[in-house]
Amino acid sequence: MAFDIKGDKVVLSRRDFDEQEYSYYGRLKGNALELSLVEAAYLVERERLDLGITLKEFFKEASGIQPYFDLKYVVYKDLRERGYYIQPSVTDFRLYPRGGRPGEGPASAYVYVLSERISVPFAELMEKVRLTQNVRKKMLLAVVDGESDLTFYEAKSASMQGKMPSLAVDLSKADATLLDDRVVIWDEQHAVPLYRAGFYGKLVDEKMLQLSLIECAYLMQLGLSVEDGATNKRFTRLQFIRRAKAIEPEFLKKLEVYTDLRDRGFVVKTGFKFGSHFRAYEQIEDVDRIPHSKYLVHALPEGFVATLPEMSRAIRLAHGVRKRMIFAYSGKTGLEYLDIGRAKP
Amino acid sequence: MAFDIKGDKVVLSRRDFDEQEYSYYGRLKGNALELSLVEAAYLVERERLDLGITLKEFFKEASGIQPYFDLKYVVYKDLRERGYYIQPSVTDFRLYPRGGRPGEGPASAYVYVLSERISVPFAELMEKVRLTQNVRKKMLLAVVDGESDLTFYEAKSASMQGKMPSLAVDLSKADATLLDDRVVIWDEQHAVPLYRAGFYGKLVDEKMLQLSLIECAYLMQLGLSVEDGATNKRFTRLQFIRRAKAIEPEFLKKLEVYTDLRDRGFVVKTGFKFGSHFRAYEQIEDVDRIPHSKYLVHALPEGFVATLPEMSRAIRLAHGVRKRMIFAYSGKTGLEYLDIGRAKP
Repeated sequence: MAFDIKGDKVVLSRRDFDEQEYSYYGRLKGNALELSLVEAAYLVERERLDLGITLKEFFKEASGIQPYFDLKYVVYKDLRERGYYIQPSVTDFRLYPRGGRPGEGPASAYVYVLSERISVPFAELMEKVRLTQNVRKKMLLAVVDGESDLTFYEAKSASMQGKMPSLAVDLSKADATLLDDRVVIWDEQHAVPLYRAGFYGKLVDEKMLQLSLIECAYLMQLGLSVEDGATNKRFTRLQFIRRAKAIEPEFLKKLEVYTDLRDRGFVVKTGFKFGSHFRAYEQIEDVDRIPHSKYLVHALPEGFVATLPEMSRAIRLAHGVRKRMIFAYSGKTGLEYLDIGRAKP
Repeated sequence: MAFDIKGDKVVLSRRDFDEQEYSYYGRLKGNALELSLVEAAYLVERERLDLGITLKEFFKEASGIQPYFDLKYVVYKDLRERGYYIQPSVTDFRLYPRGGRPGEGPASAYVYVLSERISVPFAELMEKVRLTQNVRKKMLLAVVDGESDLTFYEAKSASMQGKMPSLAVDLSKADATLLDDRVVIWDEQHAVPLYRAGFYGKLVDEKMLQLSLIECAYLMQLGLSVEDGATNKRFTRLQFIRRAKAIEPEFLKKLEVYTDLRDRGFVVKTGFKFGSHFRAYEQIEDVDRIPHSKYLVHALPEGFVATLPEMSRAIRLAHGVRKRMIFAYSGKTGLEYLDIGRAKP
């Protein structure tokens, strides 16, 4: 068959194909049909298109023209063979919902094809999610690993909203001391209510509530006063934050997210066991019956560039413990939450 | 009660205590009983020892003397109150088995107390595991997170042994091309047996087996010859490895571990979905019925320093998918495998 490669399109002249045969493949332009490289490769492989060259020759040609051609092919083929209509678009592909077709209704998602080796600047990712949501589409990331296995992720904004009332404990008289890298509340009148009303700290026993540095910095904003165990002097909040920052380099970034989530009504605890900064509970009514925490939250610094194996690990872990993985990113437009989860299109 | 603090010991003179009362606490030295700081704090808190100062005063004092005193206290108290006998030792604590007591049989484990903020040089960790196993004890890491919650890990050497026979496919005539960052085998006579006999690559269709760079470098050692899709020239193995290294900075380190595991009879595939370098199967008899892979393996570079949140994340993830987390470390004594898992002493 006579064909021409123009840029990243395979152009067939009208006399060479039957329109019916190629419905939902390519675009008609006057007397020609323009197929994208992946569409053409797929038709060649299925033996529905004969370009007079082997699949191998076509692949070598196409790989020279389009970066990551082989990855795009893997994604295209996977979705096609699971019964989806899918078309090339500015974002690699436009995906139609099950039962939907091009020309018979809108696409439901944009698909981005990523090699596991690509690094993803978070600010860009959030911008893409915003644009995609503005046109009311889902955003799917199709990640192809070194062995050409596919994992789909959906990324969407999360509007985080907890249900805890604000803390009604007078902290002005609490007896608190910084020892090493944590703070102890020594009096039962404050230790027990702090623990019971807001699930703050860990009650080592009735006489001793251990608070983390973050919890303490937050409670200082609500009136808690803390002495330095080494000097017996009281900290100002600023002095305390400076000290905490020396102990924990990520302190400020974590404190910003912790504060925002507590202010939004969440109970926020460390996510150490899950390898994230925090786990967040929408509500805890009774500390003797702690419910399931719905979210893991990780605070990312401005300018953060994600590697896909890292991101994959965090999401897989959250998934395994039935939690949503939330990335908190503080960029030019303020603090935003991105929910990324496994998807099965 | 009259007492003295000598170094990190609280010394009680004999006339001040009843030997029975303090059995299994401290050590008798002539006319004195030497308690460690945590033992003394625990007895003060339980109101079994009155030193004439408050628990708070004692804590402030002890924190000034011993680094991470409060963490050690949390671990000591936790194990004691779950019915274990535990004694100070060179490794923080010696733990006796359930039902065992000091003087009535050997300790079963050494316990190291670590703050989640501590970084752990891997070479040191492996050395400690070796020493601990030499005296036939378990090695427990008690990690205390920012909120004083405790997680125990057991670290032990793993003797990795798979069951796959060596590959009996003649590769000298296979038609293989590097495209971008993966290699395609185009002929069915090689594509299908490679996939079926060793679970190499991904069969995109019968005409096309995609191999990862690592798989390909390994198979080149077994006779596979590969052409560069861009130039049509054949690679030497060294040229191929150089190219792969440019695409994937961790390539050499991963190849060393991949090669060793394949040579030990494992089927080794990417662990991307689990955030590790590899997943390893002891045996795959039939690729249409892939069994559960028992191990996740992560290859660490020489001189690697682990952070505990990272390590915790990898282990938690492996645990959640019923796999063992194996760290492959290539140090002065060659390539060794360390199995670290959650423990419940």
